[in-house]
Amino acid sequence: MIPRFCSPVAEGFRFTVCATDGRARTGVFETPRGPIRTPAFMPVGTAATVKAMKPQDVAASGADVLLANTYHLMLRPGAERVARLGGLHRFMGWSRPILTDSGGFQVMSLGDLVTVDEDGVEFRSHLDGTRHFLSPERAIAIQRRLGADILMVLDECPRHPITHDAARQSMERSMRWAARCRDAFLADPGGAALFGIQQGALFEDLRRESADRLVELGFAGYAIGGLAVGEGQQAMFEVLDYAPQQLPPDKPRYLMGVGKPADLVGAVLRGVDMFDCVLPTRSGRTAQAWTAHGPLNLRNARFAEDPSPLEEDCPCPVCQHFTRAYLHHLARAGEILGAMLLTEHNLWHYQRLMAGLRDAIAEGRAAAFARDRLARLEAGDR
Amino acid sequence: MIPRFCSPVAEGFRFTVCATDGRARTGVFETPRGPIRTPAFMPVGTAATVKAMKPQDVAASGADVLLANTYHLMLRPGAERVARLGGLHRFMGWSRPILTDSGGFQVMSLGDLVTVDEDGVEFRSHLDGTRHFLSPERAIAIQRRLGADILMVLDECPRHPITHDAARQSMERSMRWAARCRDAFLADPGGAALFGIQQGALFEDLRRESADRLVELGFAGYAIGGLAVGEGQQAMFEVLDYAPQQLPPDKPRYLMGVGKPADLVGAVLRGVDMFDCVLPTRSGRTAQAWTAHGPLNLRNARFAEDPSPLEEDCPCPVCQHFTRAYLHHLARAGEILGAMLLTEHNLWHYQRLMAGLRDAIAEGRAAAFARDRLARLEAGDR
Repeated sequence: MIPRFCSPVAEGFRFTVCATDGRARTGVFETPRGPIRTPAFMPVGTAATVKAMKPQDVAASGADVLLANTYHLMLRPGAERVARLGGLHRFMGWSRPILTDSGGFQVMSLGDLVTVDEDGVEFRSHLDGTRHFLSPERAIAIQRRLGADILMVLDECPRHPITHDAARQSMERSMRWAARCRDAFLADPGGAALFGIQQGALFEDLRRESADRLVELGFAGYAIGGLAVGEGQQAMFEVLDYAPQQLPPDKPRYLMGVGKPADLVGAVLRGVDMFDCVLPTRSGRTAQAWTAHGPLNLRNARFAEDPSPLEEDCPCPVCQHFTRAYLHHLARAGEILGAMLLTEHNLWHYQRLMAGLRDAIAEGRAAAFARDRLARLEAGDR
Repeated sequence: MIPRFCSPVAEGFRFTVCATDGRARTGVFETPRGPIRTPAFMPVGTAATVKAMKPQDVAASGADVLLANTYHLMLRPGAERVARLGGLHRFMGWSRPILTDSGGFQVMSLGDLVTVDEDGVEFRSHLDGTRHFLSPERAIAIQRRLGADILMVLDECPRHPITHDAARQSMERSMRWAARCRDAFLADPGGAALFGIQQGALFEDLRRESADRLVELGFAGYAIGGLAVGEGQQAMFEVLDYAPQQLPPDKPRYLMGVGKPADLVGAVLRGVDMFDCVLPTRSGRTAQAWTAHGPLNLRNARFAEDPSPLEEDCPCPVCQHFTRAYLHHLARAGEILGAMLLTEHNLWHYQRLMAGLRDAIAEGRAAAFARDRLARLEAGDR
């Protein structure tokens, strides 16, 4: 089902699918701040910084867009302050597109500090205990003040496992919130785009209904929410066997919070276009390096005198200049440079994976590419 | 007094004084790994990394040489391991000269964990409690294995205050150790250079005697040790009013562990050529930025919405791209990027100060340059 009107939610944004291979697609999501090549991986810049990375080095890794967290930024330094300082792009020195989440996911994982009702979410700051309120309207207003290019609707992301009844009630509230977000957004879109978020847990009928209601509203892109919350890869892939197909083929599909390289490969084959995940950056700060053969723990003694680069044939600046032995030393000594270099390599690794997928889809060899990648991952680290 | 022979301690090393202005000198200390423009500031790369900096960014700041700590490296990853991995330069990705200290200063500040006698220093590792021994011969052997370009003799750096008697005894032991270091070094200099270290605390006669004994032995350069140990700037400058003149004019003079910008300016005017200090890097990790008007504490609330760069007219990459407001945010949020950017600015600030001193000396306006810098520092932060 295709949106019945070209709504102003997407002025300056245009998604073009350049090639398909099975259900996998490769294309370009054009934005006023530059193109996003899809499939795309968005590094996470939680507090207006991709941790341990300079923005120009994030760009050099091949990232066309990054994600920033509304929850963290609304508390510190505050959306008003970011607005007064010229918006997120200027504040953090990143000129390419930025996608902000709605803040809902992180607020609702605060546990005892949260109460949710139809109007929105009340919570206490994890920083200083102050009370805050996030409604659909306020989530949009904050993201607009931050100056995001792509905004996300406020939704409820239920925990796993959940009954069909509870999943329906939660999904229906998310759809009512999506409508309120859209109305609030359309009152002043300011050159940004708004994405809806499909919910419905692991239930195909609820996912179908959620997709239809979102498409009825009309968004510039559609996220698949409520996955990667503990259901496991197999259950997630079962949902991805149908969920992307329930969403319009002419708009980008964004799987939130995913994931490991094998998750990305499997989701791209099933028709997903965009991803975000803290894994490559967080791993970099815990001495893990991602390679085609899976993660390496650089603290491991076997790397103490290993003169090879982190990953063979990797063109990243880290693999060009430093050895596993040096990175082992930095990890053991708790040096900041270790976190910097491992994060940089991991971001390059993720972006190279996405580039490989884009090329493979364009050349009609996505399945073979995926088989090869998964075989190497299963063979394990080297 | 000039060394009576051109000893092999300095093959491939040549110091040329290009201009003098009063007692201040500017020149070039040529080494097999490239020239060191003097006056020179050496960033400290304790554990084979200038903390929170990529080596190419250290080079871009204008550093011609850096210092690495023998004590830290002998314990982790170990000098033998560094040697097997091709030496410090290859290990850490730094192709310009490296100076290593002897390890003695840090060992002797371990307190209860140390016993010193004529043969050397026995100590326990602060990392794992294992026993280690550092003699003059072993200090040289370790520095050679690390692959340093400039080695330092093992010396005893007495605490402040100290009596004349105790200072004499300590200085005399340091001079006996200096002779043993020189003999050990000359057995296999391997393209490196060895510096002697003048001791004698705050006593002019002991400094004189120490200088004469070192010059008798003959070194490629001479350090002034035993200062910046709590005596204060005035007492230090009183020593620097005579100590540099006791050392040969045709060899570089290196004031160890100094210091703040005002210390550097005062020491250069008194004839010092080389410095090292953790201050710019350590400050960067504690939210301090150095400017011509002194240090700024970026955690201070007054920077929360300050859209100006850290330092006006600073050409460094940080001042070109980021505001005080953003650096305040990073400091408050405890972000690694804050440490990275403040360290980078601070290293640029120090290197620009040295470049300013070099130019001022060459142009015969060192005193005016110093007056202007000190006046701005006294005027305080902005």
